[in-house]
Amino acid sequence: MTKEEVKGANEAEQQAQSKKALKKQQKEAEKAAKKAEKQAKLAAEQQSTEEDDFAKDRYGVSPMVQSQQKLDRVLVRIQELTPKKADQLIWVRARIHTSRAKGKQCFLVLRQQQFNVQALVAVGDCASKQMVKFAANITKESIVDVEAMVRTVDQKIESCSQQDVELHVERIFVISQAEPRLPLQLEDAVRPEGEGDEQDGRATVNQDTKLDNRVIDLRTTTSQAIFRLQSGVCQLFRDTLTNKGFVEIQTPKIISAASEGGANVFTVSYFKTSAYLAQSPQLYKQMCICADFDKVFCVGPVFRAEDSNTHRHLTEFVGLDIEMAFNYHYHEVIDSITDTMVQIFKGLRDRFQTEIQTVNKQFPSEPFKFLEPTLRLEYKEGVAMLRAAGVEMGDEDDLSTPNEKLLGRLVKEKYDTDFYVLDKYPLSVRPFYTMPDPNNPKYSNSYDMFMRGEEILSGAQRIHDAQLLTERAQHHNIDLEKIKSYIDSFRYGAPPHAGGGIGLERVTMLYLGLHNVRQTSMFPRDPKRLTP
Amino acid sequence: MTKEEVKGANEAEQQAQSKKALKKQQKEAEKAAKKAEKQAKLAAEQQSTEEDDFAKDRYGVSPMVQSQQKLDRVLVRIQELTPKKADQLIWVRARIHTSRAKGKQCFLVLRQQQFNVQALVAVGDCASKQMVKFAANITKESIVDVEAMVRTVDQKIESCSQQDVELHVERIFVISQAEPRLPLQLEDAVRPEGEGDEQDGRATVNQDTKLDNRVIDLRTTTSQAIFRLQSGVCQLFRDTLTNKGFVEIQTPKIISAASEGGANVFTVSYFKTSAYLAQSPQLYKQMCICADFDKVFCVGPVFRAEDSNTHRHLTEFVGLDIEMAFNYHYHEVIDSITDTMVQIFKGLRDRFQTEIQTVNKQFPSEPFKFLEPTLRLEYKEGVAMLRAAGVEMGDEDDLSTPNEKLLGRLVKEKYDTDFYVLDKYPLSVRPFYTMPDPNNPKYSNSYDMFMRGEEILSGAQRIHDAQLLTERAQHHNIDLEKIKSYIDSFRYGAPPHAGGGIGLERVTMLYLGLHNVRQTSMFPRDPKRLTP
Repeated sequence: MTKEEVKGANEAEQQAQSKKALKKQQKEAEKAAKKAEKQAKLAAEQQSTEEDDFAKDRYGVSPMVQSQQKLDRVLVRIQELTPKKADQLIWVRARIHTSRAKGKQCFLVLRQQQFNVQALVAVGDCASKQMVKFAANITKESIVDVEAMVRTVDQKIESCSQQDVELHVERIFVISQAEPRLPLQLEDAVRPEGEGDEQDGRATVNQDTKLDNRVIDLRTTTSQAIFRLQSGVCQLFRDTLTNKGFVEIQTPKIISAASEGGANVFTVSYFKTSAYLAQSPQLYKQMCICADFDKVFCVGPVFRAEDSNTHRHLTEFVGLDIEMAFNYHYHEVIDSITDTMVQIFKGLRDRFQTEIQTVNKQFPSEPFKFLEPTLRLEYKEGVAMLRAAGVEMGDEDDLSTPNEKLLGRLVKEKYDTDFYVLDKYPLSVRPFYTMPDPNNPKYSNSYDMFMRGEEILSGAQRIHDAQLLTERAQHHNIDLEKIKSYIDSFRYGAPPHAGGGIGLERVTMLYLGLHNVRQTSMFPRDPKRLTP
Repeated sequence: MTKEEVKGANEAEQQAQSKKALKKQQKEAEKAAKKAEKQAKLAAEQQSTEEDDFAKDRYGVSPMVQSQQKLDRVLVRIQELTPKKADQLIWVRARIHTSRAKGKQCFLVLRQQQFNVQALVAVGDCASKQMVKFAANITKESIVDVEAMVRTVDQKIESCSQQDVELHVERIFVISQAEPRLPLQLEDAVRPEGEGDEQDGRATVNQDTKLDNRVIDLRTTTSQAIFRLQSGVCQLFRDTLTNKGFVEIQTPKIISAASEGGANVFTVSYFKTSAYLAQSPQLYKQMCICADFDKVFCVGPVFRAEDSNTHRHLTEFVGLDIEMAFNYHYHEVIDSITDTMVQIFKGLRDRFQTEIQTVNKQFPSEPFKFLEPTLRLEYKEGVAMLRAAGVEMGDEDDLSTPNEKLLGRLVKEKYDTDFYVLDKYPLSVRPFYTMPDPNNPKYSNSYDMFMRGEEILSGAQRIHDAQLLTERAQHHNIDLEKIKSYIDSFRYGAPPHAGGGIGLERVTMLYLGLHNVRQTSMFPRDPKRLTP
């Protein structure tokens, strides 16, 4: 937040800033700070009513961490809890994943992201009866600071990621308390589809409940793995292109004219006028090519006001966009893009194997297969394969979603790849700025790329000649006045160029073999969902 | 563009797809392809009217590159044209930067981004009189393919980046023709401020003209340097944080409630309802912390509907956002952020020296200075320094822009740094979610960071306790119903955390010592500018 924004947002408050109001505000803050401390005392006092508690300083609810002090204490990561740390006294901060009291002891599972470890609070030298009771009563998902001795175990603890050690708790303090009733149980949310069964009480959680309570759903091992891998997709995309000499650009999302013909665009109130949300960075990345940046990429949100409620449509998603000047043939660009995709696939395979396997536990799928060099088929060949499989379609018909998937299966059978390029689409099904095929005007220098039979990229050689572009826009009934600055970009020397836009969420979904793009969008937006 | 969008956009077209319309379309494409070829022939024919031209196959206007063929020809980069390439016959594609005819020869300067080289077309074995004339008439900014012999020169060519060689042109073909009248001259656009003088005809270009013709303005050495360096800022930001174990996240820009109190927010029509454009990823990155991602960053657009027409305000800019759980004190987070900034400064200094010097030629500035560790002052100390310099202000007054700049100068004088942190702002000038100072409720655990006396980051420890957050929101008169899902995020265990948001364009501007944020936004948006 910039200071200016705070000023704006706080207008109401500024009026209230008489001395009186100020004092009230100060008191509130003091009150809040003290309240947490009181809570801590209270918890301790309640325990000691029953009998004198020798361990009373060893547990409790900590005051809210308000940066009161700089502690030198080292907090160990659960991931690092291995036999190497055996017989060391360590501190760890973690969530209570599960808790099970049993006589004079309480077994906790402590969790940090995808890692967890068993912890034991047992009546003894360090822990009193009251302390065990206190530990047993800490609500699931609360965050605790625990001091404990690391001990190796005789038998592997199969249910935990740290199977060779457990923690013998000597102190336990609650840092942040979770409300007792969770809107969903993490173990239900990661249960493989089909394994849930109401009769045996093993529930699953439906997607809307997960998304409504996304902050909890994102804590599951599956979600953690999905989004850590997605972070890797972005990094691999950018690193590969940076190594190839591409420059990252930032393009505006608020634009003055709906560039792509006016359908499916969100309108924004813009001071005294109105504007639109960009459906793609298409026009801007092309302008960057005309401005001599030669090879550019950008990663950012794109917006589609489509009332589509399917497994693969979002109204806002993240576009990984590429645009590149080429010398003589747009296949130079296809080769750059497919190589980038291959680098992503390899990087994921080599660096995110744990994440892939974690997701596979809940959503089993075949490993993602790809060829080097990438398979490139012409649209005509695709149509021929479909026809041979019994599909009836014209030469220039677009691919329907079922046919797209069917073609994916046919390609997989014949070539054993989950990734391929379909080249030379019919001109009539592509946007106005697509370069026609020089040899057959029915076709165009355009291509889609597919993962597991679903489209993840659409691209083409673009028309870099202002006059031909004008003719094609007119042919598409596009208002020339509205795309004037776009067309004018090509009047002062423009290199031949091509590019494409990739949907990040689709790449993650299809690489992992998931079935809904909402699983790979942290806070998905569709016609029916705007929250959280 | 996804296929689905094309479908929507092309609805009008689909109706026109009777066989008749289709034929017309095919003819058009054929016509366009042939037109370019005709042009080429015509140009050659015109030349040969005068006399027979022995060089007529060595120059002309090439047909539009429509990917007709895959040429094996290697195009050399101008940057690589050094004496090592002497006496080699090479091909190069470049823009005509300048052109000067002189008797039987024509001197061209060929440009690729920030690199340029002199080229000579002279009547002789390879070039005819007609060919020299043709070369002399090629419009500036046109793109040409040139075959030439690389020759070393006796005297350095001071006006070019490649000073030790020139090209002796043997063939020259126009790939893309620029219109004869350019809306601005590149040499005018890079003239240092103050050097332009109407009397001696050396014009400068005002900012609106530059921005109106951004595609040409971005071709200047200054613009190329600015945006290549900005690309570096993003890369250094992400690489540093990735190395520190941060995860990149993607947060929605379309949100259901104006999170920050409702002022300065753009409204979007969202199907049958309305929504807002996010003023920051604040709430979402905090939710990611509550969802156990521990340390997150994101790079993306943020939107501010402020009617501010200043040198440093944009209605859309790129936010570099950080959020991080900490153990005991929010200074852990300040240290992470300042270290990230220092890594950026060092990376720019070490890897972008050419770009920095290029920008300095047009906009001179002192090298950017920073300390290790970063200087951290308390707000109180800042106020005391200002008072000592004669400024009258209350303890809890916010810093005005002039006072911010003055303080920057005072800090520079005393500590010799252009980068510092101001810590512990008065609570009353910060957003509702800011954690109050545990020791003095007038103040808060919040901070700004400054470069050359201007704010580039605002951040704080956030309140991670739902109850205190509710109280503070109420105090700020914020409708609790609208931020319910935000507050609810803290009910199920939330670690203490802090973060901040950095304005990318401001970092680039202030690092380079520029004076307007529009210089560091490729396609800036302000209340008066929505195009290009």
